[in-house]
Amino acid sequence: MTFLDMLRNATAQNQSMLCVGLDPEPSRFPAAMRGDASKIYDFCAAIVDATADLVNSFKPQIAYFAAHRAEDQLEKLMAHMRAVAPHVPIILDAKRGDIGSTAEQYAKEAFERYGADAVTLSPFMGFDSITPYLQYEGKGAFLLCRTSNPGGDDLQAQRLADLPGQPHLFEHVARLAQGPWNTNGQLGLVVGATRPQEIERVREFAPSLPLLIPGVGAQGGDAVATVKAARIGGGPIIINSSRAVLYASQGDDFAAAARTAAQATRQTLQDAAAA
Amino acid sequence: MTFLDMLRNATAQNQSMLCVGLDPEPSRFPAAMRGDASKIYDFCAAIVDATADLVNSFKPQIAYFAAHRAEDQLEKLMAHMRAVAPHVPIILDAKRGDIGSTAEQYAKEAFERYGADAVTLSPFMGFDSITPYLQYEGKGAFLLCRTSNPGGDDLQAQRLADLPGQPHLFEHVARLAQGPWNTNGQLGLVVGATRPQEIERVREFAPSLPLLIPGVGAQGGDAVATVKAARIGGGPIIINSSRAVLYASQGDDFAAAARTAAQATRQTLQDAAAA
Repeated sequence: MTFLDMLRNATAQNQSMLCVGLDPEPSRFPAAMRGDASKIYDFCAAIVDATADLVNSFKPQIAYFAAHRAEDQLEKLMAHMRAVAPHVPIILDAKRGDIGSTAEQYAKEAFERYGADAVTLSPFMGFDSITPYLQYEGKGAFLLCRTSNPGGDDLQAQRLADLPGQPHLFEHVARLAQGPWNTNGQLGLVVGATRPQEIERVREFAPSLPLLIPGVGAQGGDAVATVKAARIGGGPIIINSSRAVLYASQGDDFAAAARTAAQATRQTLQDAAAA
Repeated sequence: MTFLDMLRNATAQNQSMLCVGLDPEPSRFPAAMRGDASKIYDFCAAIVDATADLVNSFKPQIAYFAAHRAEDQLEKLMAHMRAVAPHVPIILDAKRGDIGSTAEQYAKEAFERYGADAVTLSPFMGFDSITPYLQYEGKGAFLLCRTSNPGGDDLQAQRLADLPGQPHLFEHVARLAQGPWNTNGQLGLVVGATRPQEIERVREFAPSLPLLIPGVGAQGGDAVATVKAARIGGGPIIINSSRAVLYASQGDDFAAAARTAAQATRQTLQDAAAA
């Protein structure tokens, strides 16, 4: 089954657009685990168990594992997600971007070593830095398009002089991903939630692509406006929440609190879609 | 000692602008090791031993380790380079690019876990995706600027409509890195060797920054024209060669052949600088 099939199935089965991002920070773990990097797997597995029926995807962020020499725990977590939530696709958030021969190595890491269903990538080095990932049939690849961090404007919001209509750089990325780069229908886009009007712009260029939208919750995006903008065109929607779910409580009840937070966010998103 | 100090010292001591890139591919190892990912450390350590007096830097590419679950071998290799070549700075080629809180994790990975002296980064997400690396005093950070792969044109060669003179995107990155982003003098740029006239353009915007230039050797760049262009302005120069050194021979003499190849490339570069 392709990533897109899994995503559509999980969205329907769990009635959810919510992705839980797994960004484990030992310093924020509940007291019994706090500061203990050897508990990264235990913490994340508890979050997965508590939310597997509430999400359309999980998104482990690899930096949080690599900083703690916890690649083995990430491998174990991938296997755990497969076992307890085989219907939920896993997006490995790695934002890789390198020339073809090196990209082949990163693709091998993401899809063979970790068995991810999709990966996040940077488009800065162009099409041939993307193609090695597309060689893996049915796997998904989300390109950074418009990010909601303060520096997102520095390059992405520049208008391009020589293209018809002088689109912004992020609009150019959206157009490439919807069209010439999307040779096998595997591409999606990462678009921040803090600027719904820019999600609308992205949808003009990329109506049918899956959008991965971080920034609802801790990063302050407006869930209703975000869903409304992202629904234009009909492409699949993934709304990521990480810290607001993971650290809903710093007590022993962290998993139950994560479930409650995920339920609330899922419902907010479903209500927004129905509005 | 800062990365820049180490780089200047190694350049002078070894009379070299050459960086040996460590991109280990087990399928290309000599017969006795071929296909054996557990020999990545042994292979790379032999290359390091054979070239430590010929280079101004080493550049391990992390994807080649991650694809083979060989992070432990990379850690061991970093320690080995420190032991046998304490004067040679190490650039971890990772091309990371993410929001601040995640970038902190990647910076921790590069500088604390692996103890690198510098790292490569993508500028696509803007200034706040760079700053966590600059918090590590004296460490270097090379931003992707103009890459020589076929897709390098797709975004980097776009001209920006709203900036004075309508610079190309890569020229804008060079200007930011030379000026407003370079708060503590830690930034450098990655510029491909296949277009010397574009290295000249980068030097107009960034005369004093260190340039990391891959593409001489296997990627076909012209060494003489590259050095001539990169010398404009006087900033430090690092010319990377990976495969042409690592795989100079696929026999048991691979380390001696690597030394011979590195000597020849170093001499070509020194001659170009003297011309």
